[in-house]
Amino acid sequence: MTHEEALALDRADPLASVRDKFLLSEGVIYLDGNSLGPLARSARARIADVVDREWGEGLIRSWNDAHWIEAPRRVGGKIARLIGARPDEVVVADSTSVNLHKLLVAALRARPGRRTLLTETGNFPTDLYVAHGAAAASPGANLRAVDPSAVEDAIDGDTAVVLLTHVHYKSAARRDMARLTAAAHAAGALMLWDLSHSVGAVPLDLAACGADLAVGCGYKFLNGGPGAPAFLFVAERLQAELFSPLTGWMGHAAPFDFSDDWRPAAGIGQFLTGTPPILGLAGLEAGVDLALGVEETARDRKAEALWNLFARLMESRLAGHGFHLLTPGDPALRGSHIAYAHPEGYRIMQALIARGVIGDFREPGVVRFGLTPLYLSFEDVWRAIDILAQIMAVGAWKHAPARTPGRVT
Amino acid sequence: MTHEEALALDRADPLASVRDKFLLSEGVIYLDGNSLGPLARSARARIADVVDREWGEGLIRSWNDAHWIEAPRRVGGKIARLIGARPDEVVVADSTSVNLHKLLVAALRARPGRRTLLTETGNFPTDLYVAHGAAAASPGANLRAVDPSAVEDAIDGDTAVVLLTHVHYKSAARRDMARLTAAAHAAGALMLWDLSHSVGAVPLDLAACGADLAVGCGYKFLNGGPGAPAFLFVAERLQAELFSPLTGWMGHAAPFDFSDDWRPAAGIGQFLTGTPPILGLAGLEAGVDLALGVEETARDRKAEALWNLFARLMESRLAGHGFHLLTPGDPALRGSHIAYAHPEGYRIMQALIARGVIGDFREPGVVRFGLTPLYLSFEDVWRAIDILAQIMAVGAWKHAPARTPGRVT
Repeated sequence: MTHEEALALDRADPLASVRDKFLLSEGVIYLDGNSLGPLARSARARIADVVDREWGEGLIRSWNDAHWIEAPRRVGGKIARLIGARPDEVVVADSTSVNLHKLLVAALRARPGRRTLLTETGNFPTDLYVAHGAAAASPGANLRAVDPSAVEDAIDGDTAVVLLTHVHYKSAARRDMARLTAAAHAAGALMLWDLSHSVGAVPLDLAACGADLAVGCGYKFLNGGPGAPAFLFVAERLQAELFSPLTGWMGHAAPFDFSDDWRPAAGIGQFLTGTPPILGLAGLEAGVDLALGVEETARDRKAEALWNLFARLMESRLAGHGFHLLTPGDPALRGSHIAYAHPEGYRIMQALIARGVIGDFREPGVVRFGLTPLYLSFEDVWRAIDILAQIMAVGAWKHAPARTPGRVT
Repeated sequence: MTHEEALALDRADPLASVRDKFLLSEGVIYLDGNSLGPLARSARARIADVVDREWGEGLIRSWNDAHWIEAPRRVGGKIARLIGARPDEVVVADSTSVNLHKLLVAALRARPGRRTLLTETGNFPTDLYVAHGAAAASPGANLRAVDPSAVEDAIDGDTAVVLLTHVHYKSAARRDMARLTAAAHAAGALMLWDLSHSVGAVPLDLAACGADLAVGCGYKFLNGGPGAPAFLFVAERLQAELFSPLTGWMGHAAPFDFSDDWRPAAGIGQFLTGTPPILGLAGLEAGVDLALGVEETARDRKAEALWNLFARLMESRLAGHGFHLLTPGDPALRGSHIAYAHPEGYRIMQALIARGVIGDFREPGVVRFGLTPLYLSFEDVWRAIDILAQIMAVGAWKHAPARTPGRVT
């Protein structure tokens, strides 16, 4: 594969023009949309409008006139279309961590005879940490984290809820949502999926999988902006038997009646908590609208082609440099990033970033590259590998700094 | 008091120039800063810079290079200066509701022999609702809401934590923080203050009051923007014995080590939860910086003068129109808004808003006016009352619509 061949792939790419919807810096190849999606023109315009017109001019009136009060459900309803859910099964609220706590505690309470919250070792840390706190908040509950290969066998009659991530944050390995959901149901357990590394990146059909509960992140493949609010999904059939432990006023049946007694909103609304973060919602809505404007089959086909190009070029140009592929090759078994283990991963990534190729690093020794079809070209991939090959050929990473504690990597 | 006399007060006002720091619309008199503070020029510029430069150009690198990762503690440290706390006793995180849940559950767990979460009827609804959920999440705990006048006598040996709002959202009545905190301590209970209607509006000295725990809102008198994140305070002496139930990765001792086991950060850091909302933090930091730039004594003196003018004009020009003052007259016993009961309050407020005088309404039948010294002039107050007097004289409110359910009022 030559540079010319990569350019030819770009000329044939039906999604090539989507790149113009993003504000991408010259000299940067951005392979970290799996961690923080880039700024879209529409997000920039939308946030400025919310600040200048809705906040600045509309002031408090914008809760009604600019429909701020409806934003958590409106944007949730749009995300529902990306994940195969009904509009009244999804809301935008809080962070992924807070939403995980709400749904885990609600699930443990809804299965009172069962004590186990089952998850896997090596899950995304906040999933494990929040699971620890949710179990501690649920009398008699135990957190049990088993090896990823042992999860299915570990589901039993004591399992109240199984918490798994659909696409693994490090390896990008993708779980079989339908099979594991069925396994949980067969044992009488609830299943909670973390979609943070899936939504906007891989096909999702929660309804077809019989999914119970899910959470997901707004600032990765949805391009919602740094610290954008998260979303949560509760299947309609479960909404009457699950209760959020975070009983904030936005989840009340009539928040503007200002009555003293807690009365949860019917349906998904009770899983809202405090006053919604309007600036964050504005960025997220723009990102979600952009995702909805791209035909899903075309998105997935290009993601597969980008991934295959990256993997092939790594094989041909970086062989013998110590990179070990962690991501499954079968597109049905992975998300849209690619990960390699390398003992000098941190310094190699620093050398790449210094040359404008932005991926990221995860302990221990894992480099990740997001291969996002909305704004990446085949030439981007070709150039990124070319720069990596140069770095490895001359040992340029040896001049990069070692990791310092506390730094976001 | 004539229009000319109001103008004379403005000419003598040492804070008159602070108004220019805000982007206020022509034809609007904004008396609702107690609900949503207006847009400051600095907030507008700061948010645009975060969007364009930090997100758009810096991308994922901004977690380090633009110090996003430090924002919750940095902005918390600035808020600490407004409330008489130490920088390592305050963080910005989540919403007021979520922070209330964290601190109430932590307090109930820290006093295991005691069962009562004590609060008052008529407290801000989310305080009561979250207290309900926190008690439900704490085995054996009971929520007890007593009449505001009976709180002090109700504190007893079974009280784990007392939850009160410092300045009441409806009446603006201000609690004696030092006395009630001492009363809670005398009974061995913890005291949690909601500062949502106090911070940025009245003098606060949590250290001098021996305060244990507090939460507060970013979008009212701090002018942080719609749905800005909230803050929480935990006195340093309590940080080693209180544990957040929301064990998200940002509260971990080493979030970027990606280890499986939960280990809370030392100190106030463990009360962080998920990824911080960077856009919301940007608006909040600008608002807090603006508040820190105003001399507190001058702020409080002007707030008192605005309040006195409003109350006096209401007495002289609206007598006999059915308004009943709900706010204590003594400035030491109130916050910086003023509230009146009126059976037609909703429609009267709609008529005012239609004429550019923006206050708000709270069920049942309460109109509120925020009298904020940073951007209001004495002439604003004079004009607002003049317009209200015209509305009442001709009965113009009778043409305003009645309240519809679901509307933010």
